[in-house]
Amino acid sequence: MAQARIGLIGLGTMGAALALNIAEKGFPIAVWNRTTDVTRSFAANAGDLAARITPAETLAELVAAIAKPRAIILMVPAGQPVDDQLAALAPLLDADDLVIDAGNADFHDTDRRDAAGLPFRFLGMGVSGGEEGARHGPAIMGGGDAADWARVADVMTAIAARAEDGTPCAARMGDAGAGHFVKMVHNGIEYADMQMIAEVYGLLRDGMDMDAAAISKTFAAWNEGALKSYLIEISAIVTGAADRHTGRPVVDVILDRAGQKGTGRWTAIEAQHLSAPIPVIEAAVMARNVSARLDERLAGEALFGPAPRPCAMDPQTLEQALIAGKIFCYAQGFAMIAAASRQFGWTLDLPDIARVWRAGCIIRSAMLNDMAAALAEDPARNLIMAPFFADLIGTAMPALRRVVAEGAAAGHALPALASGLMWFDLMRTGRGTANLIQAQRDFFGAHGFQRIDGLDDPHGPWAGTM
Amino acid sequence: MAQARIGLIGLGTMGAALALNIAEKGFPIAVWNRTTDVTRSFAANAGDLAARITPAETLAELVAAIAKPRAIILMVPAGQPVDDQLAALAPLLDADDLVIDAGNADFHDTDRRDAAGLPFRFLGMGVSGGEEGARHGPAIMGGGDAADWARVADVMTAIAARAEDGTPCAARMGDAGAGHFVKMVHNGIEYADMQMIAEVYGLLRDGMDMDAAAISKTFAAWNEGALKSYLIEISAIVTGAADRHTGRPVVDVILDRAGQKGTGRWTAIEAQHLSAPIPVIEAAVMARNVSARLDERLAGEALFGPAPRPCAMDPQTLEQALIAGKIFCYAQGFAMIAAASRQFGWTLDLPDIARVWRAGCIIRSAMLNDMAAALAEDPARNLIMAPFFADLIGTAMPALRRVVAEGAAAGHALPALASGLMWFDLMRTGRGTANLIQAQRDFFGAHGFQRIDGLDDPHGPWAGTM
Repeated sequence: MAQARIGLIGLGTMGAALALNIAEKGFPIAVWNRTTDVTRSFAANAGDLAARITPAETLAELVAAIAKPRAIILMVPAGQPVDDQLAALAPLLDADDLVIDAGNADFHDTDRRDAAGLPFRFLGMGVSGGEEGARHGPAIMGGGDAADWARVADVMTAIAARAEDGTPCAARMGDAGAGHFVKMVHNGIEYADMQMIAEVYGLLRDGMDMDAAAISKTFAAWNEGALKSYLIEISAIVTGAADRHTGRPVVDVILDRAGQKGTGRWTAIEAQHLSAPIPVIEAAVMARNVSARLDERLAGEALFGPAPRPCAMDPQTLEQALIAGKIFCYAQGFAMIAAASRQFGWTLDLPDIARVWRAGCIIRSAMLNDMAAALAEDPARNLIMAPFFADLIGTAMPALRRVVAEGAAAGHALPALASGLMWFDLMRTGRGTANLIQAQRDFFGAHGFQRIDGLDDPHGPWAGTM
Repeated sequence: MAQARIGLIGLGTMGAALALNIAEKGFPIAVWNRTTDVTRSFAANAGDLAARITPAETLAELVAAIAKPRAIILMVPAGQPVDDQLAALAPLLDADDLVIDAGNADFHDTDRRDAAGLPFRFLGMGVSGGEEGARHGPAIMGGGDAADWARVADVMTAIAARAEDGTPCAARMGDAGAGHFVKMVHNGIEYADMQMIAEVYGLLRDGMDMDAAAISKTFAAWNEGALKSYLIEISAIVTGAADRHTGRPVVDVILDRAGQKGTGRWTAIEAQHLSAPIPVIEAAVMARNVSARLDERLAGEALFGPAPRPCAMDPQTLEQALIAGKIFCYAQGFAMIAAASRQFGWTLDLPDIARVWRAGCIIRSAMLNDMAAALAEDPARNLIMAPFFADLIGTAMPALRRVVAEGAAAGHALPALASGLMWFDLMRTGRGTANLIQAQRDFFGAHGFQRIDGLDDPHGPWAGTM
């Protein structure tokens, strides 16, 4: 067999799917897994694609099987395993070989690894789309030197998902950590999108007393409109699916206790460091954390009585509210990316990010086409101020206000939708209430304030009286 | 002069006030500042207290002036200056001397310094109350070995504020970083308390069209009831104060752009690490961040039209809403402290923390008496479940629901109050909506779920179909 175009380490769910995708697109690939049985079984089950796959039983064998200068994708668990693998590769690789961490790395780790002076070239690469995406077309967010990205761009664009206009959803985002950073914010938005859908689901289920089948039809109908997206599509599927044990709708037998792997939390932490407001994502992380506290929630229900109560609502209003909430959440995410770009000197291309997210990834949606267009017009402008979205928001706001107001009155927990609304009202209020906070801070800590008339007298009449 | 009981380094606003407080309580104190002129001028202006103050012109002179085993308070800017000062002291001190960092340290730094094996004893100490508190009685939150705290407890309890029942507001919280951690959460709560007051102020000003004088009277009236607290008291003062340049209410000439020194952000970040939901504090940090974006807010107002609109409201309803919001915010803060106590093995005493906060600090309030009592009954129970507070909440909830609902409808930004309400409704809902999130996660990532019937089948009918 000819030498492999590329190598891949780590044949877990995501790694195996990615390797098959690469082979399918015509690239000979060498693969290695720490457990040799996994490698053998992967190759044995690769079918027609086996002809393009070289299973290696040692790391040295893997390295030897790849054409020089080599490119090797790492798909191992984030953290120490990546450092261990980089260390193991160091004595085997040449200085112009390239290692690509395609795992779920913390972008700080990617930056650290890049700055540590590895004895080979290095890219960090965020891959979104779950197993199905990895197998048939993920969204790929690269980070590192442009020349290194260029060396593997043919592979990455070939295996990536394609947007409706045919553009591959793979691009270099910026320097080392930039790819994993953008992937992290993607995941934060994913948390928020899912939480808002869950909140609306609650209003359909508990507010309007709809059963899962009717809810499924509602989601399916929304998937034909402005909300068309993977997450709405699968919401229709999962609410329409029957449990194989009881025959009941499967969502009705699933415990309401959400897990998380931490990227939502990372997004929230990084946003704090950047002073970037992302309240919808924060609310989504918060809701998952509270959902895990089932015993406390049951105690709360016993003590305060059942919530939520029925509430007058209709699907059209909920759809509009979700449209507004979704725009707010993305606007916050893109503004956070812009803040990171300034902070880290990354010159991230916001329209490009929106374009990469249009297909392959979990948050893919029709609306990202319009977001890419709006960001291309003026990337420095908050997305809510773009004419296209300002119009959508103008139409949707009465609905979002009504949903939050009636939800608040009837005991429905809508933390993400409410956070979005409150952020929007802060963002559209020229004269807010922080003047009182500044007065308090000056009173107790002499922190000073600015005046509306520009006079340079930063303290109140209480100054020096203590 | 006899040797000093204690030394103090750093005669800035807080350090100078603390030194005078210590001298006033009868303890001879030696002081040193990097700039000798500051030291001289401090001593020259100390009046009667000068007899108990030894101004030192070198660090060696300071050390020589203190009785052995020595105790020295550091009141220098947090961060590198503390490390520099510790390094400068190292060659001058004996192993049984004690250095107390009383600055605004990140508790991680305090832990790091403690673990680094300093050649002397070390305490971290949070001090709250601003300049006035430092001068006349702050709240003091110590961290470090019990034996080290015991050596200076006489000084700390003498200079601390006293609660109404006479208890000094000074206590050892736990090991090294514990004092600064508790102080950090205190500041997070302070952000939240101030934000909720600002939100209610907005409803009084823009919703009910009240002028500053009437708002001041409203706050003053609330300070006679359940909300009695320093922050409500000073809200009455600052809204009642006239600008010396224009004669207008000073709050009306202060720009609505809130500053921050970062402890609110630290609290939010640490809560994420602890998976502790503190949405009211997060909302307060978010609101300050948005307040700083004045240009964007003005653009938003120009685009979406003026907000907020008048709204039917009354002070009694707002007072009740603030009571509920305040309880929620403290409940979240105490739950975060409990989580940290478990995580870091600190065995923090929650009732003790509530007692220390009752006087001297910025968030001092009458309600902390009841919180201390409720936490003493059962520190593991969330504060909202304590009978006393459950009753208050039961009374106040209709008001909070109405305020959030009408605020949402009329365009008033109430991020903290709304976050509190939404958190409460999550906490009292036995069957939430995270089942949909778990279904989605299992669909796209095979993450698995628990079932309500306990059956061990963590995947939906879609498993293996991709």
